[in-house]
This record gives sequence, C-alpha cells and structure tokens, in this order.
Amino acid sequence: MNVKALIRTVNHTLKLHNLFPENSRILVACSGGPDSMALLHLLQDIATHRHTEYELGVAIVDHCIRPESKDEVLWLRNQVEILGLPFYTAIFDVPKLSKEQKLSEETIGRHVRYQWLTGIAQSEGYDYIAVAHHKDDQAESILAHLIRGTGLNGLTGMAVVSNDYTVPVVRPLLDVTKEELLLYLKEKDISYCIDSTNEDVRYQRNRIRHCIIPELKAINPIVIDAIVRLGASVREDISLISNLTDMAFDELVTISDEGAFISRRGLRKKPLSIQRRLWQRLVSIFDPEIKLTTAHQEQLLDIVNTGEGKTFNIKSIKVSAQCDTIKVYCKH
Amino acid sequence: MNVKALIRTVNHTLKLHNLFPENSRILVACSGGPDSMALLHLLQDIATHRHTEYELGVAIVDHCIRPESKDEVLWLRNQVEILGLPFYTAIFDVPKLSKEQKLSEETIGRHVRYQWLTGIAQSEGYDYIAVAHHKDDQAESILAHLIRGTGLNGLTGMAVVSNDYTVPVVRPLLDVTKEELLLYLKEKDISYCIDSTNEDVRYQRNRIRHCIIPELKAINPIVIDAIVRLGASVREDISLISNLTDMAFDELVTISDEGAFISRRGLRKKPLSIQRRLWQRLVSIFDPEIKLTTAHQEQLLDIVNTGEGKTFNIKSIKVSAQCDTIKVYCKH
Repeated sequence: MNVKALIRTVNHTLKLHNLFPENSRILVACSGGPDSMALLHLLQDIATHRHTEYELGVAIVDHCIRPESKDEVLWLRNQVEILGLPFYTAIFDVPKLSKEQKLSEETIGRHVRYQWLTGIAQSEGYDYIAVAHHKDDQAESILAHLIRGTGLNGLTGMAVVSNDYTVPVVRPLLDVTKEELLLYLKEKDISYCIDSTNEDVRYQRNRIRHCIIPELKAINPIVIDAIVRLGASVREDISLISNLTDMAFDELVTISDEGAFISRRGLRKKPLSIQRRLWQRLVSIFDPEIKLTTAHQEQLLDIVNTGEGKTFNIKSIKVSAQCDTIKVYCKH
Repeated sequence: MNVKALIRTVNHTLKLHNLFPENSRILVACSGGPDSMALLHLLQDIATHRHTEYELGVAIVDHCIRPESKDEVLWLRNQVEILGLPFYTAIFDVPKLSKEQKLSEETIGRHVRYQWLTGIAQSEGYDYIAVAHHKDDQAESILAHLIRGTGLNGLTGMAVVSNDYTVPVVRPLLDVTKEELLLYLKEKDISYCIDSTNEDVRYQRNRIRHCIIPELKAINPIVIDAIVRLGASVREDISLISNLTDMAFDELVTISDEGAFISRRGLRKKPLSIQRRLWQRLVSIFDPEIKLTTAHQEQLLDIVNTGEGKTFNIKSIKVSAQCDTIKVYCKH
C-alpha cells in the first residue's frame, strides 16, 4: 500500500463515522512511538487531502515506567515545536500508583492517562481525542478478550468512536495494519522512539503479539483480517441483540420503590440469549458491580422455567419467585 | 474428578439432549486411541449407572496413513471380542484418495469415515453414531474456525447431537476434558493405542493443540473453559438471529418462476446483522455453493441503501434493482 492509498483508507474510516467536521480541534494522544507519530502526520496529510483545516494538539504522558521516558517527552516536545502545534505533557508515577492501588501498571496507566487527556481536552477546548490503535491492535484486543473469556461482547473489539469518556475518543487507524504504518513512516522519513517494554513477554499484550499471533499466522497468513472481520460482524449482531433486550426489558420489567418485578411466563417466551442479557441488565440496576457468572445465569434461568416458590441471593441482591412473579431487590 | 463424577457429567450431557432412550442401538466410532476407548467404556458404565440397556457396536476405519494402523485394528478387534460386542471394520487408502481428489488427508479421511459409518449404522440398524470429541477438541475446533475466519457461525463449535448425516451423530464427551478422560482410563486400567501423528505439527489441528493452546494457557490457565463457554453463548445468539432471519425472509421475499423479489424499503428497516444473513440465504436458493464474501455483502447492502437502478452479477447469480424492487435470479 502506498502513502496515497493509506491516506485514502484512513480518510474512508473517518468519513464513515462523519469525522472530523470542518475546523475540529483534535488532541492527539502521542507516545513518540511509531503508531502515534504516524497518526499525527496522517491527520495532517488528511487535512491537506481534504483541503480542510483541523486544529491539532499533541499530548504525551510520562508514565515513569522506563528510564528513557523523560528523554522521549523532550524529544517529542521538539518535534511538535517544529510542526508548530500546541504541546501538553504530564508526569505520573505509575509504578508507585500500581503498588499503592494493587492494580497492574497497564490498568493504572490507562486510567490516569485517559483521565488527564479528557481533562486537557475539556479545559483547552478540544472536540476529540485521537488515539493510534491500528488493525493489529484490534486483533490483539479481540484475542485478549477471547483468552480471558469475557463473552461475546468482548469480541467486538474497539470502536472507531468511543463515547465512554466525557470527550469522544477516536481511532482513525483501525483499518490499517502496523506494517502499513511502518511503510508510511519510512516513505515519509518520519522518526519515532522505540518502547523497549514492547518486547517484554511478561506483559500479556506482548505475549499475544510475539508468541500467539505468529503461531496463528503460520496457519492463516491473513488471520489479523479474519479476526478483525469477525469483530465487526459480532458488533452488528450484538447491536441487534442489545436492542431486542431493551425492548424485552421495557415490555416485561416493572420497577417500583420495592424492587423490580418480572413475569416468569413472559420471560419464558423470550430466547435464552435475551433472557441472560435481561438478567444482567436487571441486576446492574441494583448493583452495577455485579457481573453474573454462568452459574448465576443458570440459577436465574432455572427459576424462570419452574413454577416453584424460591428465594436466593446473588451478592447484594435478593431474588424471590412466587407464583408468576419474580421480584428482584436490594438485600439492605 | 473421580470416576463417579465423570460418569455423572457425561450422563448429564446426554440427559440434557434426551439421550439415549431405553434399548438404543449405538455404534461407537473408535480408533483404539484414548478418547474413543474412554467413550466406549463410559457408555457401558452409564448403562450400568442408569440400570438400563444399550446395545453397543464398535466400528473402526483403517485410513492407511500410519504403518501401525493395521495392528491397531487387530488389537481393537480383540478388545471388542472380550467385551462381547459386535465389531465392524473397513480399509480406505486415504493417502491415495487424497492425491487423486486433491483434498487433504484430514478432509478425505473424515468424508470416507462418516460415509462408511452411516452406511453401517443404517444397514445394521443402529440409532446413533457416538464419537469421542471432548472439551479440548471443542476449544480447538472453535479456535480453528476463528483462525480460518469462517465468521460467527464457526464459533459455535460442535453440537452434542448433529443431524448433518442420515444417522444422528452424538458427542457424549463434550463436557469433559482430555485430562479427565486420561485419569478415567488410568483409574479403570483401560489400555489404548497412541497415534504417532498426533504429535506432528504439520497437521493444523496438532499445531493448535501443541503450539497455540499452551501459549493461551500461559495467559489464562482455564482458557479451554472460556472458549467452550463462549461457543455455547454464541450458539444461543446465532439461534435467535437465525430465527429472526427466517421471519424476515418470509415477510420480505417473494419467489416466482422468474426469480426472487425483495423490497429495498422493507429490507432497509432490518438490522444489518439480519440483512447480511438474509442475502446469504437468498443466493443459496439459486446456488448453494455461493459463500458471500464481505465485498459481495457490501455491494448488496449498498443497493439496499441507494434508490438507484443497478444490475450486477455474483458468480452464477444476477441481482437487478429497479425502483423499490430488487430481483435475484440465475444468469442461465
């Protein structure tokens, strides 16, 4: 793929999601690594390609995980100055926070990074945060979910536009591979930093990248495409099932001060696929922390199918079935 | 898991599928290997456990792939004689057939084996063919589909009861692991043959078993369970989506001698997930060989969304859109 084709692909991805409107202000989350340097330059190329103007800003977090991170921030500041763009930076002692909060460096790092990025975007008036996840990252993310066993929802992968934060997070590179990005960087002679921890297979993501993906490619050389395509098709299916669950919920669930009420007979007529998701939605109203296990689901499906009176607890929730009515409420 | 627990698990799997009715005649497909020897003995144990009678028969195919296969057939004949059960055997020169028909030994082997098994089952009056696929096989099968990229349908894995053949094929061991089967064989002192090709990573399945699964287990030790659970949940979702596709098909498609007719407006209201599947079903009526690619699907979704007149071919099929009507018919 040559540079023009790459620009067209990224432009196509953005257009499909009505991105970016004229005069958008976009904060590019950059690490100085190849992916985010390619993103920064590609967004400039696309503005030229479209004869439009974006206002770009560049933000980098020093996570204090590697000794060289301080120098990388300085290097990036210099690069961004040459481009004449606004530059924002922050330092977080992620190893320390990780120990204090007993969470992995990856989890804490992601948390503080996005919190800070959305803060900067809001205070500096950016409409979007752009991040550099590409097609290989997408396949890795889907595989990670498959391996951890988080169910079908995890197989959808990352969305081009996520609205999980106060500022929309956009992933313009999801349709291009790492290899294409590296070719682009080479072709345009763009320099970048190399993150030494990318090779460390103690990190789960690197294990997937360096040990598992090559094995999968030995069986199917275009496995990345296959996995990403699966993710897209799962996303459509989930969207349909999720809408049907909403409809079933509105039809069957009555909520009062005493709790939620649902008819066994009504629920029994719904497909299992909907019943399971409806239960998850229902318990989440009372306790957003509850993630129903298969055992919980079986217990719930079971009281729908029998006509017996029965009461049991799922964590902080009480489920009580009498005649046709199942009542769900907080224990406290 | 002790022997009793294993028997209960297999019995539970069978009962969920109303298997096997009193006095069933079951033909056990056996290779002499650990899995199928465990299956044969477990089926006898379950008959005892249930105080019921099955009539078991044992069938083995010599695929002529390994020099020792002839001896294994003789060894199994002897074992089956001791058990006092009917024994059936056949020889197929799979390497020769594979070369002649330019298909892999695995594909040809499976084809001739099932053809012969169903033939024997029919002529000898067996109600079921039992095969020894277990939980690890199920996870491997799901992974194989994921890697080849056969879409969500492939992620359902193998069914406990398949009706793809003239005689139902039953997999009683899908809820137990290979490890549990080996413990059972050891505990009951049951001997078995070892297939030397099981270690050969030139075979795709062995690559998944010996190279990929261990890498996945390094990240999540219970990855087999995670994958199998995903398969079960996908099966429920697919069943729902498939029913909805049937309903949309009945509602929107009119078939006459001239071809099939469908309304753009009607189709446009359906979710993408249904539209894609409906198109696959529609073209399959005219040519069961057509497997729509993503590019074909995009082309079809596109003519639904535009109001333009347009005609194009997909292999042996012609698709022609005029005003609100899309007509699908055979080119010849």
